Amino acid sequence: MARVPRHRRLVLPLLCLLFQGATALLFAIFVRYNHETDAALWHWGNHSNADNEFYFRYPMKGFQDVHVMVFVGFGFLMVFLQRYGFSSVAFTFLVATFTLQWATLLQGFLHSFHGGHIHVGVESLINADFCAGAVLISFGAVLGKTGPAQLLLMALLEAVLFSVNEFILLSVLGVRDAGGSMTIHTFGAYFGLFLSRVLYRSQLEKSKARQSSVYHSDLFAMIGLPVRQLSPRRPWQPFLPMGSFLRTIFLWVFWPSFNSAPTALGDGQHRTVVNTYYSLTASTLSTFALSALVSGDGRLDMVHIQNAALAGGVVVGTSSEMMLTPFGALAAGFLAGTVSTLGYKFFTPVLESRFKLQDTCGVHNLHGMPGLLGAILGVVVAALATHDAYGDGLKSVFPLIAKGQRSATSQAVYQLFGMFVTLALAAVGGSLGGLLVKLPFLDSPPDSQCFEDQVYWEVPEEPEAETQRPLRTEDTTQA
Amino acid sequence: MARVPRHRRLVLPLLCLLFQGATALLFAIFVRYNHETDAALWHWGNHSNADNEFYFRYPMKGFQDVHVMVFVGFGFLMVFLQRYGFSSVAFTFLVATFTLQWATLLQGFLHSFHGGHIHVGVESLINADFCAGAVLISFGAVLGKTGPAQLLLMALLEAVLFSVNEFILLSVLGVRDAGGSMTIHTFGAYFGLFLSRVLYRSQLEKSKARQSSVYHSDLFAMIGLPVRQLSPRRPWQPFLPMGSFLRTIFLWVFWPSFNSAPTALGDGQHRTVVNTYYSLTASTLSTFALSALVSGDGRLDMVHIQNAALAGGVVVGTSSEMMLTPFGALAAGFLAGTVSTLGYKFFTPVLESRFKLQDTCGVHNLHGMPGLLGAILGVVVAALATHDAYGDGLKSVFPLIAKGQRSATSQAVYQLFGMFVTLALAAVGGSLGGLLVKLPFLDSPPDSQCFEDQVYWEVPEEPEAETQRPLRTEDTTQA
Amino acid sequence: MARVPRHRRLVLPLLCLLFQGATALLFAIFVRYNHETDAALWHWGNHSNADNEFYFRYPMKGFQDVHVMVFVGFGFLMVFLQRYGFSSVAFTFLVATFTLQWATLLQGFLHSFHGGHIHVGVESLINADFCAGAVLISFGAVLGKTGPAQLLLMALLEAVLFSVNEFILLSVLGVRDAGGSMTIHTFGAYFGLFLSRVLYRSQLEKSKARQSSVYHSDLFAMIGLPVRQLSPRRPWQPFLPMGSFLRTIFLWVFWPSFNSAPTALGDGQHRTVVNTYYSLTASTLSTFALSALVSGDGRLDMVHIQNAALAGGVVVGTSSEMMLTPFGALAAGFLAGTVSTLGYKFFTPVLESRFKLQDTCGVHNLHGMPGLLGAILGVVVAALATHDAYGDGLKSVFPLIAKGQRSATSQAVYQLFGMFVTLALAAVGGSLGGLLVKLPFLDSPPDSQCFEDQVYWEVPEEPEAETQRPLRTEDTTQA
Repeated sequence: MARVPRHRRLVLPLLCLLFQGATALLFAIFVRYNHETDAALWHWGNHSNADNEFYFRYPMKGFQDVHVMVFVGFGFLMVFLQRYGFSSVAFTFLVATFTLQWATLLQGFLHSFHGGHIHVGVESLINADFCAGAVLISFGAVLGKTGPAQLLLMALLEAVLFSVNEFILLSVLGVRDAGGSMTIHTFGAYFGLFLSRVLYRSQLEKSKARQSSVYHSDLFAMIGLPVRQLSPRRPWQPFLPMGSFLRTIFLWVFWPSFNSAPTALGDGQHRTVVNTYYSLTASTLSTFALSALVSGDGRLDMVHIQNAALAGGVVVGTSSEMMLTPFGALAAGFLAGTVSTLGYKFFTPVLESRFKLQDTCGVHNLHGMPGLLGAILGVVVAALATHDAYGDGLKSVFPLIAKGQRSATSQAVYQLFGMFVTLALAAVGGSLGGLLVKLPFLDSPPDSQCFEDQVYWEVPEEPEAETQRPLRTEDTTQA
Repeated sequence: MARVPRHRRLVLPLLCLLFQGATALLFAIFVRYNHETDAALWHWGNHSNADNEFYFRYPMKGFQDVHVMVFVGFGFLMVFLQRYGFSSVAFTFLVATFTLQWATLLQGFLHSFHGGHIHVGVESLINADFCAGAVLISFGAVLGKTGPAQLLLMALLEAVLFSVNEFILLSVLGVRDAGGSMTIHTFGAYFGLFLSRVLYRSQLEKSKARQSSVYHSDLFAMIGLPVRQLSPRRPWQPFLPMGSFLRTIFLWVFWPSFNSAPTALGDGQHRTVVNTYYSLTASTLSTFALSALVSGDGRLDMVHIQNAALAGGVVVGTSSEMMLTPFGALAAGFLAGTVSTLGYKFFTPVLESRFKLQDTCGVHNLHGMPGLLGAILGVVVAALATHDAYGDGLKSVFPLIAKGQRSATSQAVYQLFGMFVTLALAAVGGSLGGLLVKLPFLDSPPDSQCFEDQVYWEVPEEPEAETQRPLRTEDTTQA
Repeated sequence: MARVPRHRRLVLPLLCLLFQGATALLFAIFVRYNHETDAALWHWGNHSNADNEFYFRYPMKGFQDVHVMVFVGFGFLMVFLQRYGFSSVAFTFLVATFTLQWATLLQGFLHSFHGGHIHVGVESLINADFCAGAVLISFGAVLGKTGPAQLLLMALLEAVLFSVNEFILLSVLGVRDAGGSMTIHTFGAYFGLFLSRVLYRSQLEKSKARQSSVYHSDLFAMIGLPVRQLSPRRPWQPFLPMGSFLRTIFLWVFWPSFNSAPTALGDGQHRTVVNTYYSLTASTLSTFALSALVSGDGRLDMVHIQNAALAGGVVVGTSSEMMLTPFGALAAGFLAGTVSTLGYKFFTPVLESRFKLQDTCGVHNLHGMPGLLGAILGVVVAALATHDAYGDGLKSVFPLIAKGQRSATSQAVYQLFGMFVTLALAAVGGSLGGLLVKLPFLDSPPDSQCFEDQVYWEVPEEPEAETQRPLRTEDTTQA
């Protein structure tokens, strides 16, 4: 079996050590506890226990749920590729972990840099987790076709552009995007898609088709883990055992917390949870309906259920803190589930044949299109904002409108502009990222070694010869 | 392989669209944010941040844990049937999701209908999750023998009766049942059992026994996922890979939160958590003891461990908010684990042979009998309530006794009456439900297609011919 | 297949019943609700709702996360041994459950025994969970080589020594150890290792090597669950399917909550979360770097990733509530990941060959060495404590220094002394435990039945004959 060439074996460990060394150095120079985490600063202020609790506990709660969702949902169980299981989960873990450190620094410089220091608290952790979420979405588009060193460089670049985009939208343009329809989903999806476009491998099909015969679907069927058969045309398509359904359920259950973590306290968070919850129920129902309708014979497709059902969480990312109304949440979720299911059925094949885009996990259907829909929904709901509907709550949701600095219409225009900024930065960044990870010393795996754990992991020696024996035996017997 | 007949392929998508359309319409007409989730209403009131937090966060916390428990515990991983994995998890997801919307409306009309509108907040979400829990329990009794369209209709009916029963018990009779020993577990279990009785299939065994030979247990053993072999007598009995143990652990860990979510704040919730925690430890120990005792050769049965160990959570559903005492919690849990284990061993076979009841997941042992025990325990503990034991806490736990409108004895009688009301509504409702889902246009799967994913899912073509080849080869060689 | 001898079949159920009976009796005599969980006591006090909430909610939150981490992370998915899956997860469950009851009593006598009664509240539950965590760590060292009755006795003894050690450190010596680097990880690991030393089985290799041929790794590879092949030299080494990665992710995600659950409210908890989070990111990056460096061919080892990446949580157990600084957290995590990875690579083989220590799950690398490192880190950070750095926060973190009863240096000396006390008690306790569980009536499994579910579970009859047939067929054909 192919090994990493001798002189390049050091690329991954050296990158890890270099990156860790650099972030550690920057931490030593710049990062300090903020006033809530520093013992002296906190006790110097005259805080009552109630204040203490107040400051402490909300982020704690939000943080833990977001953390579970990013690492268990976006990360682990992202996809089960047949011979790429170790790499899928472990590279996700590596990339997300590095991003947490790196994003702490980037977002710190942009948002909490005072007196020469970055002041970190639990909000830093939540924001870093969001950045890791966007990087993992991009990862989904190139899964199996990139090595760990390439992914680290992708994360290095993407976190920078993510932070810049987030800063432009939230701080410069005054755009509202609590749940990240734009900053997380749209940005992450299109960054990954543009990057995947640059890495297009025209011969991937043939090289994989040769190998896929090793996996006889009957074996899967026999062991009681129903799986989607590898299509001979798209062998990199994930197979879906029960395990990956757990990812769907975790994301579905924690999405209300994810969208509500960064919104204003009180009615804002409460409303976000209610809207996200109902939107997800509607996207699930529409996914089941559409999946059965488009299949031709009334049967369902597990790929749709496990992915499109979640589009309701993406689509209300921007608007769930607004007065979307419960009915609005249902309608938005229904639309998102429909669009996402149709995307898997009709658009994914076109993406590859027409646009030369190999989107391993279908991030365009789950994050790209629903993210754009969510941005547009945000435009519409912002345009409809009135003092009557929000009362004094306008100060929390649309502070610039409340202060009279903007009309609802101009807020809507800013929201729309934010969407285009996101798309532009994702396109430029993803393309640059593609060129970056093509650098020869990063050792892009050759086509024949895509979707192969053997390249990166100490796994049992390739048993190809043995596994084929029974088949040959049979043939012999039958001949 | 059998397909859904052409003219009936549209039943499922049309039901999904119809139900979603209807609930969306009703949402548009009736459902509004409540005063905590509406921006204008909340900020109009003169709430301090502390109040805001107070109202907001408690339910948030309770909600997230209940949501995880219902969807991960009751739902996903409910059971792994060998060729029914996709259907088990996905139909659970579909049914639960629809129930959330539908229960929001039903419970809203009964509990929070003011000025022509239903006012939703996070308590609505918790209550809807509880209703979904009951529906999933019923689902467990008919799993594998009903199609998704049938299950949607079952949920439609059951949610109505659940809400009516809950309203009668909690609002009319003043019965206490925070953790739902009666309203959730007893109701869900007997609704499902009566429904299953109506759907009795006398030929199910034969048709399945023919198929089960495809699965050679040696394959399971070889791949290191120990499983319970299909009994040739009861081929619909779940097989239990490691994955389903995760369900047990999730339920076990989150049950204290589940029982405590709707109780009074303060000591009430705190006590509920403590009681449920200790009750679960005792049911686990008694399950291990009994499982080894009844096996005949001292070995344990994984079916007992994965199910009866949880009976301690069910049995204190009614009484865990009361002054049960830590010892009382241990005793109750011990009894529940014992009864549930004995039920799996001795009662399940009788249920089928004598009562023509095919209880796929054994809900009678985990939810039915422990639920009834829990209701009776509630009667006893209520009868023992004194002003001395509860102090001013009596106002929270037994407000009618505290106000002098009832004696402890009459509260106990009401509790007992509530149990019978629950049984009666479950019996009538389940029987009606059975007749409803037998409607011909719903396409009940024929016996030969029970427990088969192929009917509903786009899975690899049936590889029966191929999988049998190695066996034939062997035979040839040996002959 | 070997069965449990007839006259010994009753040992496990009798132990379960005896232990449950004894704890229930002690509960009846001694255990009472504390003032926060007792209806009368709570309402007798003049508590405002805010106080009520205050007391109630913090522990609630901490409790749920700790509970998930101990049962899902430490417990379930601890390890997947090929033919020992049922036993791994279920014995873990049994032992942890019993420990919760027993630790409630032991810790209650030491910490909350007033007026002849133990007063339990949610802090009792958290502390009992911590004790169960330590017992499960020890379990990891002897997994597969001990039966359930032996494990119950081990837990009986270990919980006593754990509680005594915890009492000496925290209450007598005034040592700080919030996240339990010493009391949980060091104690649990060395208790288990000494116990494992006493149980050393010199013939284990041979007896297992004979059996391991049943599992052809090609089958694993074919079903798409990549696994580590059993080494013929150490057949008890766990194989690592995807499932066990979930354990890693759960532990990684919940470790910040685990370390922060028992620390002081406010800045203390907040800082603990931040430190643990960053330490874990650094241990992950160093694990990837070191794993690739030591492999010789640049490939990664999944055993390292799934374990050493977590060492960052262990190493800051003592110091994460202190002013470790974000950079300090990164450095500590980096060091821990490095030491742990090197331990798996170079030290584990020596442990067995030189010290006759068969450490099934490698607890020495994940809990032992990082725990000691964490204790020493605590010594250093305590020695550096100044009034300037902590301000009034010194009262929460180092109350004895704040009161002037100790200098920072003497606190450091006490910390160091605490580490040695822990090691001494673990060594003595583990050795005693080894002698205890060797009692003949406990039926230690013979070498040939280690790592075998068949002994304890009703699983399908051993299909060895059948599984080997295909291979024989092949041989025949080839001959």
